[in-house]
Amino acid sequence: MTNQQIGQPPALSEMLVAGLAAILGDRLSLNPTVLEQHGKGEAYHAAQTPQAVVFPNSTDEVAQAVALCAAHRVPIVPFGAGTSLEGNVQAVRGGVCFDMTGMNRIVAVNDADLDCTVEAGVTREDLNLFLRDKGLFFPIDPGANATLGGMASTRASGTNAVHYGTMRDNVLALKVVTADGRVIMTSTRARKSAAGYDLTRLFVGAEGTLGIITEVTLKLYGIPETVSAAVCPFDSLEGAVDTVVQAIQLGVPLARVELLDDVQIDAVNRWAGTDLAIRNTLFFEFHGSEGHVAEQIATVRAISGDNGGGDFQWASSTEERNRLWKARHQAYYAAIALRPGATGWSTDVCVPISRLAECITETRADLARSSIPTPMLGHVGDGNFHVIFVIDPTRPEEYAEAKALNAAMVARALAMGGTCTGEHGIGLGKIDWLEAELGEAVDLMKAVKMALDPQNIMNPGKIFRGVEALSASA
Amino acid sequence: MTNQQIGQPPALSEMLVAGLAAILGDRLSLNPTVLEQHGKGEAYHAAQTPQAVVFPNSTDEVAQAVALCAAHRVPIVPFGAGTSLEGNVQAVRGGVCFDMTGMNRIVAVNDADLDCTVEAGVTREDLNLFLRDKGLFFPIDPGANATLGGMASTRASGTNAVHYGTMRDNVLALKVVTADGRVIMTSTRARKSAAGYDLTRLFVGAEGTLGIITEVTLKLYGIPETVSAAVCPFDSLEGAVDTVVQAIQLGVPLARVELLDDVQIDAVNRWAGTDLAIRNTLFFEFHGSEGHVAEQIATVRAISGDNGGGDFQWASSTEERNRLWKARHQAYYAAIALRPGATGWSTDVCVPISRLAECITETRADLARSSIPTPMLGHVGDGNFHVIFVIDPTRPEEYAEAKALNAAMVARALAMGGTCTGEHGIGLGKIDWLEAELGEAVDLMKAVKMALDPQNIMNPGKIFRGVEALSASA
Repeated sequence: MTNQQIGQPPALSEMLVAGLAAILGDRLSLNPTVLEQHGKGEAYHAAQTPQAVVFPNSTDEVAQAVALCAAHRVPIVPFGAGTSLEGNVQAVRGGVCFDMTGMNRIVAVNDADLDCTVEAGVTREDLNLFLRDKGLFFPIDPGANATLGGMASTRASGTNAVHYGTMRDNVLALKVVTADGRVIMTSTRARKSAAGYDLTRLFVGAEGTLGIITEVTLKLYGIPETVSAAVCPFDSLEGAVDTVVQAIQLGVPLARVELLDDVQIDAVNRWAGTDLAIRNTLFFEFHGSEGHVAEQIATVRAISGDNGGGDFQWASSTEERNRLWKARHQAYYAAIALRPGATGWSTDVCVPISRLAECITETRADLARSSIPTPMLGHVGDGNFHVIFVIDPTRPEEYAEAKALNAAMVARALAMGGTCTGEHGIGLGKIDWLEAELGEAVDLMKAVKMALDPQNIMNPGKIFRGVEALSASA
Repeated sequence: MTNQQIGQPPALSEMLVAGLAAILGDRLSLNPTVLEQHGKGEAYHAAQTPQAVVFPNSTDEVAQAVALCAAHRVPIVPFGAGTSLEGNVQAVRGGVCFDMTGMNRIVAVNDADLDCTVEAGVTREDLNLFLRDKGLFFPIDPGANATLGGMASTRASGTNAVHYGTMRDNVLALKVVTADGRVIMTSTRARKSAAGYDLTRLFVGAEGTLGIITEVTLKLYGIPETVSAAVCPFDSLEGAVDTVVQAIQLGVPLARVELLDDVQIDAVNRWAGTDLAIRNTLFFEFHGSEGHVAEQIATVRAISGDNGGGDFQWASSTEERNRLWKARHQAYYAAIALRPGATGWSTDVCVPISRLAECITETRADLARSSIPTPMLGHVGDGNFHVIFVIDPTRPEEYAEAKALNAAMVARALAMGGTCTGEHGIGLGKIDWLEAELGEAVDLMKAVKMALDPQNIMNPGKIFRGVEALSASA
C-alpha cells in the first residue's frame, strides 16, 4: 500500500549468520514462516519480512548481536507483540528482526517506591497479573496486549491516559542497547531528575530507530479502593464530548472516559455479545475512595444530564467491569469482524479538546459519504479518536478511499492545532504527515538519528526519509 | 570555585557588535555593570561575565541575533530571571548573553483546553496573576520567581511536583531558535502525541545548550474548589518521612508536602516572623472538592498521629495560606540570612522515596560534624531534598568543607539509585556527578549536542565537557 518498496536486500553473509548462531544458538531462525510472522504489525501496511529473526534472552545477547549487525551494516528491527498499527516493524530493508518476547522477566518490583523494572518483552497484562496480589497496577493500556518495550517505543497510551498519562509520563528509566552495541541506562529510579538531556523521553517514542530498549522502569499505582464503571448513551455526539470537556474543566479526575459511536457500539454488541443501546456512548471509569468516587459520579451524572445523556448503566462487580472494558478493548477486532475477511486501518488524530466535537462532526460528514464501514471510538478526554476503516483487502479502491478520508482527517486535525498521531506513532504510514505537522523540526530529529545511529541500521526507513548512511555490505 | 576557568575570550568583533546593534538598537548593552549582572545566577559559583547582553523583544530578533552569532562562532548564553543554582548561566567562554525578560507577553490562554502559550520571559508569578481571574493556575513553583523559559530549560519543579509533576510533565510544546538561527515548533497543542522524537522533552532540561526557547506552551489547571494548608511538627525526621510515604502509598493526592528541619524552621521564623515550633516539620497542602479535601486531611492526620506527628496548625484563609507558603518559598533566602554576608550553596539530591529517611539520616550525621550552618528542606514526596550550606564567602575552607559534604551526599544518593540533581540541573556544578550517575549515556548527550549545535556556541561548557568545536573567530 503506502509502503516504500525497496529493492531486494542483499543476502545476509554466512559470517553474520554464523556469528548470530554463535551468540543465540537455536534462538536464531531463518524459517520462512517465522520470517513472515515478523514482517508486519496488525494494520493495513503490506508485510515486509526480515531475513532472520533472533530471540535474545538477555541484554548481553542483544548487545552482542547488535554489535555484530553493526559490523556488517545490517538493519535491525526490534519486535514486541507485533501489535503496532502504522507499519512500525516492517523490515523495509530486510535485515535481522529482534523478537524481544523471550525477555519476559520481571526484574524488580519496589512496592514502597511504586515502581518496577521489567524486561522489554513483558506484556502489560502479564505485568498486571503479577502485580495484582501486591495491590499495585500499571495503568497504560492500549487495546492490544502489547509488550512494555513496544509500548515505550511507540509512546503508547490508551484508555487510562486521561488520568494516568501516557508511556511518556510513566517510564522512569530505560536500559538501552545503542546502535553500536553499548548498554546504557537513560536515568535512575529517582521520581524526578534534572540530570542532563532527557534520554528516557528521547527513546520513548523513537520506534526503535535509536537503539533497542531491553529493560523498562515504570511508575506503578496502588489499586484504587473503589473502582466504578458505567456506560451512558447520548442523544448527540456533541453532548457526549461536551460532557467530558465540562467534567475535566471542573477537575473531575476521570480515570477513563471513552467515546464509541453507534457504528462501533453495534460492532461491539455483535463481537462481545453485549446488548448496549446503539447510540453514541461514553464509557466511564472512576477511581478513588468510596466517598470520592461517589462525588465524581454525582458530578458527572449532573453534567451528562445537561448534555442529553441517558441513563447510566453500571458495572459494579469486578467481573461486570472487566466484561465491559474487554468489550471496549476489543473494539478494533469487533470492527474488523463487521466484514468477514476484512482488514482494519485505524486512524489516530488528536486535537485540542476545544476542537474535538467540531473535528469529529466534520469527519463524520465525510465518512457518511463512504462505502466502507467506519466505526469510530475515542479517548475523548485527550482529544484523541480513531476511525477504523474496515477494508476488503481484495479491493484496492477501498484503500484509496480510506487514504483520501484519512488525509482529510489529518489535514483537519493539523489545521486545528492537533497532531497526526496521538498514540500509534509514525512508522511508515505517517512520514509525510509528520513533515506537514512539524516542518523543519523534523530536520532536528534526523540530525539526532544520524548522531546516535550514523550507519542508519536501527529500524531504517521509519519516522522520516532521507537518512541514508546504510550501505548494505552484509 | 569549582568553575572551569577559561582564558580571556577574544574581543567581540566590531562587525558583530554593529550587526547586533542593527538588529536590537539600544537593546544591546556593553555596559560593564549590565555585563556583571548577567554573569551568574543565585548560587555559589563565581561570576563569569558575558561580553555583551542583548534584550530581544521577539522570536524574530532572537533568530536574527543567533544567526549572526553563529556566523561569528560566538557563544550564546540564554538568561531568564538569573535564579539558577548550579552555574547554568555563567559565560565561561564569554560571548553574548540573551536576556529574555523583555519577551514577557502572554500569547494565548485557551481556557477550554487548559493550556496557554507565553513568551519565555514571563515569570511564573506574572502568569498566575494573569490567570487568577479565569479560575486557572500554573502549578510549578521553584522557590524563585523564575521565568517560564528558564524553568523549562532547567527542568524545574518545586513544591507542587508531587501532584502536578515537573516542567517535564507540564510543557506541551516549545518555540525554539536553533543554533543556526532557525525557528521551530517542537510539538502541537494536542494533549498527547506519538509524532516522532520528543523534541519538547529534549529541550526541557537542556539548559540552553541546544537552542533558545522563545515561547512555552503549558498545561494549566483549574483552581481547586477547596485548598487547605497545614503545618505539623514531628518528633523525628523518620516519622515525618514515613508519614509522607504512607500517604502516597494510600493514594492520597497530596498537592504539596514539604519537609523543613529544625534548623530551617528556625531560619524561617527569624526571616519571615513566623513562630513555628523549632522541630522537623511537614508543610501540607490539599486540593480538591470540599469533601475530598476533608477526607484527605482525615487520612493524613491519622497516619501522622501514628508516626509521632504533633498538632496540625491550619491556614484556612487565603492570606494565612499565602503567608505560610511565602515563608516556605523564602527558605533559601531565610537560610542565607542566618549569617550576615553569607552565600548559599543549595544541594539537590533525589532518591527513591524508600531510601529517603535513610539518606537524610546519614546525611545529617555528616552535617552534625560541620562548622557551617546547614538548614535542610525537602520535596519529600518526590524523594528530593536540599541542604543549604550557609557559607562565609571570605573563608575558602568553608567552600572546601561544603564541597566534601556535598560529594558524600551525592555519592550516597547515587548508591541508593538516586540522582545528583532533582531540579537544579547540571550547569557547571555537577558535570562530574552526571558522569558518575549515567556513565556512557553522557556520550549520547554529547552526540546529540554536536548534532544540533556543531559549533558548540549554545551555552558552551555546561552539562558536560569535551564538546569543543567552538573556535572563536569572533
